[in-house]
Amino acid sequence: MQNSSTVAAISTSLGKAALGIIRITGSDTFRLVSKCLGNSKKFNDAENRKIILQTFIENATGQIIDEVTVIKYSNPYSFTGEDMVEIICHGGISILKKIMKELKEVGIRGAEKGEFSKRAFLNGKMDLMKAEAIHALIESNNHIQSKIAINSYSGGYLKVLNETNQKLIDILAEVEAEIEFNEEDDIKENNFNINKIINIKNEIEKELSIRKKIKEVEKGIKVIIAGPANAGKSTLFNNIIGYERSIIFDEPGTTRDFISEKVTIQEKEITLIDSAGIRETLNKIENIGIEKSKREIDEAHLILWVSALNEKINRDEKEIVEKIKNKNLLVILSKSDIKTDGDKEEYYHNTGLEYIKVCLKDSENIKNIIDKIEEKINSLNNNIEIPSFIISSRQEEIVEEMQEEIESAINNWDRKEIVAYYLNNAMKGIEELLGRRDNELVYNKIFEKFCIGK
Amino acid sequence: MQNSSTVAAISTSLGKAALGIIRITGSDTFRLVSKCLGNSKKFNDAENRKIILQTFIENATGQIIDEVTVIKYSNPYSFTGEDMVEIICHGGISILKKIMKELKEVGIRGAEKGEFSKRAFLNGKMDLMKAEAIHALIESNNHIQSKIAINSYSGGYLKVLNETNQKLIDILAEVEAEIEFNEEDDIKENNFNINKIINIKNEIEKELSIRKKIKEVEKGIKVIIAGPANAGKSTLFNNIIGYERSIIFDEPGTTRDFISEKVTIQEKEITLIDSAGIRETLNKIENIGIEKSKREIDEAHLILWVSALNEKINRDEKEIVEKIKNKNLLVILSKSDIKTDGDKEEYYHNTGLEYIKVCLKDSENIKNIIDKIEEKINSLNNNIEIPSFIISSRQEEIVEEMQEEIESAINNWDRKEIVAYYLNNAMKGIEELLGRRDNELVYNKIFEKFCIGK
Repeated sequence: MQNSSTVAAISTSLGKAALGIIRITGSDTFRLVSKCLGNSKKFNDAENRKIILQTFIENATGQIIDEVTVIKYSNPYSFTGEDMVEIICHGGISILKKIMKELKEVGIRGAEKGEFSKRAFLNGKMDLMKAEAIHALIESNNHIQSKIAINSYSGGYLKVLNETNQKLIDILAEVEAEIEFNEEDDIKENNFNINKIINIKNEIEKELSIRKKIKEVEKGIKVIIAGPANAGKSTLFNNIIGYERSIIFDEPGTTRDFISEKVTIQEKEITLIDSAGIRETLNKIENIGIEKSKREIDEAHLILWVSALNEKINRDEKEIVEKIKNKNLLVILSKSDIKTDGDKEEYYHNTGLEYIKVCLKDSENIKNIIDKIEEKINSLNNNIEIPSFIISSRQEEIVEEMQEEIESAINNWDRKEIVAYYLNNAMKGIEELLGRRDNELVYNKIFEKFCIGK
Repeated sequence: MQNSSTVAAISTSLGKAALGIIRITGSDTFRLVSKCLGNSKKFNDAENRKIILQTFIENATGQIIDEVTVIKYSNPYSFTGEDMVEIICHGGISILKKIMKELKEVGIRGAEKGEFSKRAFLNGKMDLMKAEAIHALIESNNHIQSKIAINSYSGGYLKVLNETNQKLIDILAEVEAEIEFNEEDDIKENNFNINKIINIKNEIEKELSIRKKIKEVEKGIKVIIAGPANAGKSTLFNNIIGYERSIIFDEPGTTRDFISEKVTIQEKEITLIDSAGIRETLNKIENIGIEKSKREIDEAHLILWVSALNEKINRDEKEIVEKIKNKNLLVILSKSDIKTDGDKEEYYHNTGLEYIKVCLKDSENIKNIIDKIEEKINSLNNNIEIPSFIISSRQEEIVEEMQEEIESAINNWDRKEIVAYYLNNAMKGIEELLGRRDNELVYNKIFEKFCIGK
């Protein structure tokens, strides 16, 4: 470890709270921090990683600023790989700022955004993907995001990338052997190789498609209300919107044909689409092929299929239900308050689909539907596939480039020199992902996005 | 220590940050927390107060939620006096909430507001005044508040209260001796006693008056602009208001005679008063006695005395300056841009008062004045007297009652039985301050004001 300047940052969120943490890192951490403590001998003698009680002292007056606990981490066994101290103090804004001010008085600089992680990276304590995982972990707004981040943080990506790298090395070795001994024309060997590289291409493609799906969900969950005419679709639409208090009234109608509104259900932003806007085309079997409505139903994360109990089931409805029954579907049998001689409930019962019988005028029933929607959306989130390694746009871009290199290798399979060139490029992508290729511009850009204290 | 339920709380402010802390306290802390950790053996074997690296595990799936550090505190050597654990995790909101959720899954209840401090109090780890000091420390918005809080937290109050208590005991002993042997009429002894009790009364009075001054400053700092007519007082007033971006435009004119605005200078709310509103009465010596303007100048924490350089000094002005020169004063000699034959600067130079020469049309000059105001206000804060023990309204009320009891004792000095009664009451006040008198209603009310996690 080289000599490094000593920097400090408030590492917890700034607000009134019981506790707050200030972290200090750098070559001179122990000496400078000890100047601020009431019992510097006790601090100097303290064991590594043992928490000790101290008073934090105002330099100019010798007065106590706060009673704190302090933990020493000697290099290289710390987050940054440098000497580090964590000060846990009372969580008042004024105290945290005052302690920072005093640390500056003794010569400790305020850390820049992401400086702790950047130092950890530069000291070889973590690669770029782990740093990005920490960032994602802190920024995660929901369980699925934090799950993706912690999976990456735990190092899942390393195994996948090392395996891919090894496979590319193996193929490259064979390719280079072939270049050297190109007089021997062994077609079988050649075929074996191309399958291996196609496998890699498929794996990467799968990873990129998982990433795209997650980005799709991140953008927001789409829920479409569909079903035969006069079943109460618009009533349901208006009731869901009216029921939820935290509605964002923007983008009324993303396309001319649909009515859509954004609603927030359990902290999740949901785009609710009323297919009544498609002028009841959905209940006419001849129109189901219409590209636009089909696409909306295809893209929806959840279909609320509304059908009135007081109407008989017809062939059109049965055909549509057949088509959508394997999707994420909630069947809502409406008008349960009207006397019915219908066979509709029996039909839906026999499909084995989950259905609920409701009167859409009843606010208790609307609440039940919203509970069901929440449940469905939660299970949607729980079933989502976690990417093996891509968690950031930077990573996605590099992997897309790798994918292109590998495709070029496949497309030029007969010209082994060109194949070797592209395979080499693909392997560079892995180095880039991990930040092993020295590119200060790139990693500075990454760490700038971090919060202070990380 | 009795068996206590095990509770947890997020103890840092909730927001995106590098780190966050969750605290757990209660009899079953170690067993329950170990259920949530990746390596429970390592946790169980861990030394007290030694920070160890762990993974925090989702109960249902066994998946990692976060990589955390964990510190064990065995009772009674913890904040609450119970077994305690601190978990330092990544500071994402989603992670903190998820960890809390998992702790609840294994049977740990979410803590109520102030529950940690309340347990510490009930387990005899701190008295009520220390608990209040922690609360004040967290709530402190500026350096002076946190200084008062830490002074109390460090236990300064205990010495004062113990001394006062001992003095009261001594006096009471003498008083009781006198009751028993009231045949012996020793007037000298009697006089000696009354001086001791008057001393206590004076000490308490001083303490209460310091408290009142601090409350005054807390309410906001008053800055008054005064000086002869046509010196630019209103120009200065408008320029200060216009200069600062963070103005709170409320209470325009707190009295009909004054123009006052609230401005925020360096995070401090200041009431700026333009005495031009007093219809230039201030420059007329015969009117300086007017109660209202006198009071405003008396109460002001800082007087900005504006006087134009192009006007000659007159007797009126000199007399007023004589009266206010020992107050917190900044002399602003305006119209420095106009050619002057005046003796004004010479006069102010000879007074030894601090003065600045400005042209109020120059924004750079206005900035200098604001810098000066900041400086004056800062030194005002630094010179403020710190109370020996009163830091809350509860404490102030009790001490006011004690003061009344002591006065009653003094007023009835000849009737020793009545004196004994009042002295006893005064001593109960001290017990009440420290929370030694069992009054669940009182301390519950105190801890309810605390934040969660404290």
